[in-house]
Amino acid sequence: MTHVSGRHFLQIPGPSPVPDRVLRAMSAQVIDHRSPEFADLGFKALSSIKSIFKTEHDVIIFPASGTGAWEAALSNVLSEGDHVLMYETGHFATLWKKMAEKLGIQAEFIVGDWRGGADADQIEQRLRADTEKKIKAVCVVHNETSTGSVSPIADVRRALDAVDHPALLMVDTISGLGSVDFRFDEWGVDVAVSGSQKGLMLPPGISFNAVSKRALDVSKTGGMRRSYWDWGDMVGINGKGYFPYTPATNMLYGMVEAIEMMHEEGLQTIFDRHQRHAAATRNAVRAWGLEVLCSRQGHESGVLTAVLMPEGHSADNFRAEALKHYNISLGSGLSKVADKVFRIGHLGDINDLTLIGALSGVEMALSKAGVPHEKGGVAVAMQYLQDTPAPGIDA
Amino acid sequence: MTHVSGRHFLQIPGPSPVPDRVLRAMSAQVIDHRSPEFADLGFKALSSIKSIFKTEHDVIIFPASGTGAWEAALSNVLSEGDHVLMYETGHFATLWKKMAEKLGIQAEFIVGDWRGGADADQIEQRLRADTEKKIKAVCVVHNETSTGSVSPIADVRRALDAVDHPALLMVDTISGLGSVDFRFDEWGVDVAVSGSQKGLMLPPGISFNAVSKRALDVSKTGGMRRSYWDWGDMVGINGKGYFPYTPATNMLYGMVEAIEMMHEEGLQTIFDRHQRHAAATRNAVRAWGLEVLCSRQGHESGVLTAVLMPEGHSADNFRAEALKHYNISLGSGLSKVADKVFRIGHLGDINDLTLIGALSGVEMALSKAGVPHEKGGVAVAMQYLQDTPAPGIDA
Amino acid sequence: MTHVSGRHFLQIPGPSPVPDRVLRAMSAQVIDHRSPEFADLGFKALSSIKSIFKTEHDVIIFPASGTGAWEAALSNVLSEGDHVLMYETGHFATLWKKMAEKLGIQAEFIVGDWRGGADADQIEQRLRADTEKKIKAVCVVHNETSTGSVSPIADVRRALDAVDHPALLMVDTISGLGSVDFRFDEWGVDVAVSGSQKGLMLPPGISFNAVSKRALDVSKTGGMRRSYWDWGDMVGINGKGYFPYTPATNMLYGMVEAIEMMHEEGLQTIFDRHQRHAAATRNAVRAWGLEVLCSRQGHESGVLTAVLMPEGHSADNFRAEALKHYNISLGSGLSKVADKVFRIGHLGDINDLTLIGALSGVEMALSKAGVPHEKGGVAVAMQYLQDTPAPGIDA
Amino acid sequence: MTHVSGRHFLQIPGPSPVPDRVLRAMSAQVIDHRSPEFADLGFKALSSIKSIFKTEHDVIIFPASGTGAWEAALSNVLSEGDHVLMYETGHFATLWKKMAEKLGIQAEFIVGDWRGGADADQIEQRLRADTEKKIKAVCVVHNETSTGSVSPIADVRRALDAVDHPALLMVDTISGLGSVDFRFDEWGVDVAVSGSQKGLMLPPGISFNAVSKRALDVSKTGGMRRSYWDWGDMVGINGKGYFPYTPATNMLYGMVEAIEMMHEEGLQTIFDRHQRHAAATRNAVRAWGLEVLCSRQGHESGVLTAVLMPEGHSADNFRAEALKHYNISLGSGLSKVADKVFRIGHLGDINDLTLIGALSGVEMALSKAGVPHEKGGVAVAMQYLQDTPAPGIDA
Repeated sequence: MTHVSGRHFLQIPGPSPVPDRVLRAMSAQVIDHRSPEFADLGFKALSSIKSIFKTEHDVIIFPASGTGAWEAALSNVLSEGDHVLMYETGHFATLWKKMAEKLGIQAEFIVGDWRGGADADQIEQRLRADTEKKIKAVCVVHNETSTGSVSPIADVRRALDAVDHPALLMVDTISGLGSVDFRFDEWGVDVAVSGSQKGLMLPPGISFNAVSKRALDVSKTGGMRRSYWDWGDMVGINGKGYFPYTPATNMLYGMVEAIEMMHEEGLQTIFDRHQRHAAATRNAVRAWGLEVLCSRQGHESGVLTAVLMPEGHSADNFRAEALKHYNISLGSGLSKVADKVFRIGHLGDINDLTLIGALSGVEMALSKAGVPHEKGGVAVAMQYLQDTPAPGIDA
Repeated sequence: MTHVSGRHFLQIPGPSPVPDRVLRAMSAQVIDHRSPEFADLGFKALSSIKSIFKTEHDVIIFPASGTGAWEAALSNVLSEGDHVLMYETGHFATLWKKMAEKLGIQAEFIVGDWRGGADADQIEQRLRADTEKKIKAVCVVHNETSTGSVSPIADVRRALDAVDHPALLMVDTISGLGSVDFRFDEWGVDVAVSGSQKGLMLPPGISFNAVSKRALDVSKTGGMRRSYWDWGDMVGINGKGYFPYTPATNMLYGMVEAIEMMHEEGLQTIFDRHQRHAAATRNAVRAWGLEVLCSRQGHESGVLTAVLMPEGHSADNFRAEALKHYNISLGSGLSKVADKVFRIGHLGDINDLTLIGALSGVEMALSKAGVPHEKGGVAVAMQYLQDTPAPGIDA
Repeated sequence: MTHVSGRHFLQIPGPSPVPDRVLRAMSAQVIDHRSPEFADLGFKALSSIKSIFKTEHDVIIFPASGTGAWEAALSNVLSEGDHVLMYETGHFATLWKKMAEKLGIQAEFIVGDWRGGADADQIEQRLRADTEKKIKAVCVVHNETSTGSVSPIADVRRALDAVDHPALLMVDTISGLGSVDFRFDEWGVDVAVSGSQKGLMLPPGISFNAVSKRALDVSKTGGMRRSYWDWGDMVGINGKGYFPYTPATNMLYGMVEAIEMMHEEGLQTIFDRHQRHAAATRNAVRAWGLEVLCSRQGHESGVLTAVLMPEGHSADNFRAEALKHYNISLGSGLSKVADKVFRIGHLGDINDLTLIGALSGVEMALSKAGVPHEKGGVAVAMQYLQDTPAPGIDA
Repeated sequence: MTHVSGRHFLQIPGPSPVPDRVLRAMSAQVIDHRSPEFADLGFKALSSIKSIFKTEHDVIIFPASGTGAWEAALSNVLSEGDHVLMYETGHFATLWKKMAEKLGIQAEFIVGDWRGGADADQIEQRLRADTEKKIKAVCVVHNETSTGSVSPIADVRRALDAVDHPALLMVDTISGLGSVDFRFDEWGVDVAVSGSQKGLMLPPGISFNAVSKRALDVSKTGGMRRSYWDWGDMVGINGKGYFPYTPATNMLYGMVEAIEMMHEEGLQTIFDRHQRHAAATRNAVRAWGLEVLCSRQGHESGVLTAVLMPEGHSADNFRAEALKHYNISLGSGLSKVADKVFRIGHLGDINDLTLIGALSGVEMALSKAGVPHEKGGVAVAMQYLQDTPAPGIDA
């Protein structure tokens, strides 16, 4: 092994840094997943995750990545040949669409420019045109991790309601949950997909489906052939605190601890903190004379900020320099924007000084990599942080 | 919290106790799954797991329970309507069959009595009758966790070869791998399924498919609609040390450490150790005047021993007494043998004194629960351990 | 590294096995020892340790081994040339005496045979003869770790009172505290010495002085030249939750957790559990036809049992065999009884099955080492455990 | 508990942040301190620590704070009434002198102004005047933690040699060792004192005496009455990898790991890194228009930087604001400079981004606390880091 001094700055938009307290909770010995002691754990996990989705409905926990929870969502309520409406917010919306197609679903895309969240008006327009109600589901990414844009889910709900369309509202909030506000019940979401390694501050390994009454009913008679992802198998035995197959016990230890920490800090405090850090970051980006990828006002993400590189400069080269010189991991641009943007994660367990450390890494690496920019982004971010009350501390 | 003094004896047939060294390895901070540092980890994980399967072929690592790896195995090489031959070794063989049916596969069972592994002769006979070669795969459970019986996989291979049948040989070695010998290449297995929480001494959360060249070829054009479980997506990017979706990074930390530990001890030493402990356990069971569920000689498992309760006595009540009085978890009887057998796990990271401690818990709990038995099982097991050289220590 | 399968059985009379929960608590990041957060920790540590000594008086925490706390005890209340009366219970009493002499104290020994605790009558007799009250302190070892004998401290107090002698009562309860009952206030102890690595279930590294009002007064004007061990420096700043020099912060994390666990289990339950395990162990020893070193009835220790080897057999050779074959550490005989006894620790975080595992290691190793003995000690111990209600579980 | 988001910035001059890798090493189960396995650990610990002191001589490891190692140093070679020459570099030099006096030593102070290290010329002058060679030892603090000044130990050696004075050279390098260069053998140091919680990146709890041949000889017949601190007891049994009393085993686990990490990085790289961070910090301080306490050029510490507050402003109030708003711990001014200076630790396991994060915390907190200053210190430090090759990374 070689030791490089100091703590790595993990500033990608997930996995986010796991707090030591969570890592310690996860390092407890595994237990019998059919024991009474496990049932206590299972109940705690299953009920506490509901508070994060802001739902009274069932939340299913899969031992799987977020990608698996995407598949679970689709396969429980949709069948081969079904029509769904999706919105191209970026790379992950595109991946979800590809998955739907692989599974035999007819997925229609509302084309987007990757510079904002979903446009509820366009969705409403499209639904209005669907007089035969062939569209079975509207699928939207809440926080598009590849671009740093947030879709207004409540508006999408209103779009559905406005035309009285029966399509299910399915939302990917893999990177949004626990960092930016999400209200499953209030917003009338039918299926929400999320994962552990973002706002929940856990390692990757478990993922979630929150499921409305209506979606659950649909799944009972509908959906594709499925086994691992079947909600029905889960819901029954979850009622006793158990799972139909061996759960990822140590991840559940960590999850219970992480959610307890989130409530200690307060969900609203967490959301406000993310907004404040995001704003400080955007101010820094603009001070550097660079452009934030998300150009739609009000859609900027609290989770990450994607930054456009000046023409002719490689984002990947820049990221490599940042990693080499400053021990910081930044997110890469994906597919369409590969090598053209880099992404600064500011989600999960961070604070002001970590953010400034990270931004200083970006600013110094811009110089190291010979990327033309103005100095002073860090100073601007510091000023912003000073001037803006820190939620939970100053307020 | 309440503290109960002393270490819990986790003697179920998996999850098995996770060594502290593995838990420590897993408690390292998560890293960027697209970084060069991750690629090192990925390569190490992907190559070291091959040594455990004894294969040169690809091993796929899923962030999922073993159940997911079952589904992956089936969905990559079989299609709806395909015929497969399965063997009823016990509860898990039955579950696998149910899954196959849920996925639309025509699964034919060779009925078994749950008291031994698969009978290769019966398989050969059935294959011989399949002159049209409609059977696409033969699916066998290597170590049947519900009964403590091991199927002779090499014999099953010979059965296939004897009639020159092209069916794929698919093996569930979820609870066998790393505890009892398994030779993917030598035995001509096409798809093997395994999981982390048994012989690999890890918590549950990742699972595996080892895949022969032929199976991989079949999967390229065949198999069901699938996405998460698709081997093709995995194999390509695995070549660079990465994964197509976020991997369970901390599980990989633990896996690399665990496999290093297994090689430190030596695979053959591990297998011999399991046999010795299993034999000591069976001796104890017989000394108590109880019956071992596995009645076919040579099929007794090194992983666990299932014990039949005397008529009229509840195994579950007995297990509850054992847990309450002696802080030991024993495995329950499942489905057909529910409440009729209990299972003693002796797999993974254990040693002579832990085994004796566990057996003493069984013997004392038999008394507490009022189960008629002879005393002295522990003494007999001790005598056996003394008389039989301990692999890696005495030899 | 080499991996040997299974958990080591650490059955020496301290350090005792540290529960995972304590190790996890200790693995938290270190904090500023002058911060408000530290003061909370300091208060918690300083107040909770009092409950273990059963005292309302000051308990001083030293970053030091128990040996250091011995020196602290002597140097705060005694001066060069002072007379003290000590009782030869075994090796540790002898070491304490040697230390006193090194420090210039006139230490008088009541000679003992190492087969029991202190004899209060002899002490009373000697004190009665000290008409000039030249004896400044009576020093007794509560639980003599080298022999497995407990001294009746309450009786020693009565001896002092009976002759109205002003000597301070100083007690080493390094290996007794938290395993066998100790009542600082009720028994009128003036200075008690203890350490972390025994009944407190912590690693070695911190040690304690409990100090009566009278002892503290003596120390203010008396005692030797001292600095590190000075109570005065400690007591003042301890009132604010801080320490005069850098404390062993992570040990304090562990200590607070361990004491919480002790209260969860209940002190009396802990003491009863130790007595039950000690009795089971003695029964096993006798069944083997071997002799327990402690021959004075009522003085047998709940912490450990020292066992005499048959003439002509080396205890150290036996222990080496036990370690090699059964991965169990047993305590060695010290000085006078070197190679003649071995010691079985049954203190701290253990339970019935661990004890039986340990005893089975002893019984099997006796065979391996060719030590003449009867078989069946384990069986006898099991019978005893079954027949005797387990404190906190059955009662 | 309450959770405050993000990682605490522990920027006091020790304890320094403990790397996760060290915390994990320390969380291993405790072992028998008289076992062969322990001897391996003991040997590794005892030999590896020599490489850090750059000595071939004995290094003694005490389960104690650095303060204990001071007492050990004094008590092994000095007797009551002995004359020693000390140099007032700051608070810790003063504490060491007070300790010497408590122990009965005649300690003479060369008065210093707390703004630099020891002046070798003054020491030479004083030694020259000591024609009777009454001075038994010259005691100097290498890195004065209270002021951020480093004493030129090689020059002090030359001063002794210049007048051919037989006094022992005793050096406190508690906070220097492992962060700024120290050469026990080359500089002819006789006794060096150090601790675990600074450059060695460990929690507090163990401390060291490096001992020259001559010092060891002196100790054999000389020194004070002592027991716990006695080198002689240690040196003998250390030769077998053991200790005369129970060692702090888990601290040794951590120490072996930490020293391995230090060699992976390279000692010279570590020293250069500290100098670079210290220079960046001083540049920031000056850009803020504040004054660095150490005013003697060439004496500025690589370990920490003490900063003078503007007249009329409370350093402690400022630190409290920094802690509250930015979750950063800064060191307080001690005794003479209490409330007048604050100290920025930049030692141990840190890197560029952590340093910038810390400095941004200082800069923002200066505003919060209303301390008059120029903005831009962080920008200046960033510029310095960019312009100066990072040891081990750029070079």
